[in-house]
Amino acid sequence: MASIFTKIIKGDIPSYKIAENEKFFAFLDINPLTEGHTLVVPKKEVDYIFDLDNETLGEMMIFAKKIAGALDKSIECIRVGIIVIGTEVPHAHIHLIPFNDEAELNFNRKKLKLSEDKFKSIASKIKAKL
Amino acid sequence: MASIFTKIIKGDIPSYKIAENEKFFAFLDINPLTEGHTLVVPKKEVDYIFDLDNETLGEMMIFAKKIAGALDKSIECIRVGIIVIGTEVPHAHIHLIPFNDEAELNFNRKKLKLSEDKFKSIASKIKAKL
Repeated sequence: MASIFTKIIKGDIPSYKIAENEKFFAFLDINPLTEGHTLVVPKKEVDYIFDLDNETLGEMMIFAKKIAGALDKSIECIRVGIIVIGTEVPHAHIHLIPFNDEAELNFNRKKLKLSEDKFKSIASKIKAKL
Repeated sequence: MASIFTKIIKGDIPSYKIAENEKFFAFLDINPLTEGHTLVVPKKEVDYIFDLDNETLGEMMIFAKKIAGALDKSIECIRVGIIVIGTEVPHAHIHLIPFNDEAELNFNRKKLKLSEDKFKSIASKIKAKL
């Protein structure tokens, strides 16, 4: 069965898309730790990120760098953190999390609740800096 | 002034080294969240990981994948998490953290206190699987 991320990539489940290319897709996490919290996923459905072939893994980080650059320019933050846990959804994904305080990079914290309008406006701000 | 990681890479500060190549160096974090917690750093002293040029960034992930593979084989864990925060030391570094429970990937938790002998035995176990 297709993973939830594959359904998002295909458009079967809606998302606040940030960017995509032939191999990768980036969209806002709907349970964000901070405003701008973005997920980067490979279109190829691989569970564990380190099971990606070297070329795809390297390209995924370079794609993530591009997204992080837009986050740095559009979201008030000291920098963008990277977290890969991967046990929640069996489809490799990188969390890009703009932060002002290290303590924000903690998945045990309460997630933000944002309105649809807020998500849309965050996505627009980020995309404008890509 | 050289960063603490540059001093470690040069051997001016001792470390429990796991591996190195021309561009990257991996060693055990001495304040580990879990046994086997390893840092991967570029030899080039760059503060923010996303300021690395694309080629080096991609290669760094591929180097990290190799180390993670050895961690997966030598440390009892469900997989290896990736965290990049980067505000503690102004020299880009990837935390590779073998974990059994997501909750272990939290820098607010108490770090493990391990003896020198324990660090040495962990490093040997990991290196044997490289």
